[in-house]
Amino acid sequence: MIIGIDLGGTKLATALFSEEGKLLSNGVISLDGRGGEQVGQLITEQIKKIQGSDTQPRAIGVSIPGISHQKTGTVWAPNIPGWESYPLLDEIKKVSGTMPVSIDNDRACCMLGEMWRGNARGCKDAIYLSVGTGIGAGILIDGKILRGAHDIAGAVGWLALDKPFQQKYIQFGCFEYYASGDGIARLTRDILKNESGYNGVLKNISANSITAHHVFDAFENNDPIAIRVFDECIQYWGMAVANFISIFNPEKIIFGGGVFGPATRFIKDIQAEAAKWAQPISITQVSFEESGLHGDAA
Amino acid sequence: MIIGIDLGGTKLATALFSEEGKLLSNGVISLDGRGGEQVGQLITEQIKKIQGSDTQPRAIGVSIPGISHQKTGTVWAPNIPGWESYPLLDEIKKVSGTMPVSIDNDRACCMLGEMWRGNARGCKDAIYLSVGTGIGAGILIDGKILRGAHDIAGAVGWLALDKPFQQKYIQFGCFEYYASGDGIARLTRDILKNESGYNGVLKNISANSITAHHVFDAFENNDPIAIRVFDECIQYWGMAVANFISIFNPEKIIFGGGVFGPATRFIKDIQAEAAKWAQPISITQVSFEESGLHGDAA
Repeated sequence: MIIGIDLGGTKLATALFSEEGKLLSNGVISLDGRGGEQVGQLITEQIKKIQGSDTQPRAIGVSIPGISHQKTGTVWAPNIPGWESYPLLDEIKKVSGTMPVSIDNDRACCMLGEMWRGNARGCKDAIYLSVGTGIGAGILIDGKILRGAHDIAGAVGWLALDKPFQQKYIQFGCFEYYASGDGIARLTRDILKNESGYNGVLKNISANSITAHHVFDAFENNDPIAIRVFDECIQYWGMAVANFISIFNPEKIIFGGGVFGPATRFIKDIQAEAAKWAQPISITQVSFEESGLHGDAA
Repeated sequence: MIIGIDLGGTKLATALFSEEGKLLSNGVISLDGRGGEQVGQLITEQIKKIQGSDTQPRAIGVSIPGISHQKTGTVWAPNIPGWESYPLLDEIKKVSGTMPVSIDNDRACCMLGEMWRGNARGCKDAIYLSVGTGIGAGILIDGKILRGAHDIAGAVGWLALDKPFQQKYIQFGCFEYYASGDGIARLTRDILKNESGYNGVLKNISANSITAHHVFDAFENNDPIAIRVFDECIQYWGMAVANFISIFNPEKIIFGGGVFGPATRFIKDIQAEAAKWAQPISITQVSFEESGLHGDAA
């Protein structure tokens, strides 16, 4: 059996799998504002709990929302207070004994999850584009996860897609500014500001509380602003994916994260947009798919 | 000793190296309009000639201007007539005996050349951006060349960098349309068309015969159109490189091809442009360098 641990910014999910990848049991715990060592303890407690039951886990995999430094076993996670360089591997090894432990960032884990039990089974070259609050990509090359020289590969929210540079991209990157979950809300607010004649459903929500959910709901009702926002996002998603295709010549692009989800309906449109931009042979050699595991990939 | 063969669109360069990478002898032959099997014969003749001298080559490396299919040993090269699916490996094996033979595309060979004898020595994660008539990239990941599922990885001339899509990108891709050697000439012609007040040196050249060389010469003389063209190109080069940095988190970006060359003077400006767009930690972990081998990398 295998222990899977998925740490998010606000909660910790644990699961026990058979070695074939069948989910045997799982649970979710809220972090409740915990930080630093308290989060490390929460993780080791869950491992001990599973070990104490009559299971015999043989390996542990941990997904973290940040950077996992493979050489040092330390992790950096911007949403967990005190995790600038937290020695998570050492902490887990205190309870795991001789079991192999693997820690990776969430986008890499999503890609590995899709490879193991989702829509990338049998793939050697694939890209998992995760669009949620932020944007990242898990990139599989010849069966291995791309890490980069310092474990920060796949930071594709920073893709430059619209010249010239604007100061507003500094905090998130150009692609994430427009086409993440938060970006959908941002873009909507930007458009609403300049649309004095508009009288649709989005007008009734105070600008600061608009979320991507509102925009998806408005789209369902043919709201013209929502249509315009997703038309923009489809262009950005299509350009980003076209760039992956021209650079990597992959077999598959898999769309995941909270936004895909409801944006899954746009995958055909994204494919049509990507086809305009991408290397013309590579685009014929790649398939576009939704996540096979949805929120459970990591 | 090792035989190195670099096939271009119009000429064939051969070289003999020591196993440490020291150049022992070399030569260049014009293709003179040869196509199909004639080019294959030209290559095997050169190999036989080297074998016939008192050298004992132990391996052969061949760089081709197109796609090298690793599984079949066939090659596709758009500028060599009849090389849609040419069995180059089989042809070479007829004369090479038991010697190992490796055939790869020119951008991959440039990257490998820089790794062996140039500015990527000791690197495991690096990108060679080749800007000549066209644009391509040789991408090194954990010490291995990125090939993709069907050997077309690195086709970065197709990068989508400026929304929305325009029909004129169809033939070359957006990045190559603007920022290749031919792109520099194209952009200059486009700007000249709309500049009735301009009276500089580029005005004296008929629009159709403007080349990148003319634009570099004009830049030397502070020509305002040339300055504008390179200002645009620096933005595109900077955005493309920023995208490599956010995606790959590499140690090095190496600029090569005919344009770098004279555009080497812009590398600092390209770095400043990339710094605006790229993942902010990754940009501090990468160095920007010119090719250490110039025209001889492949």
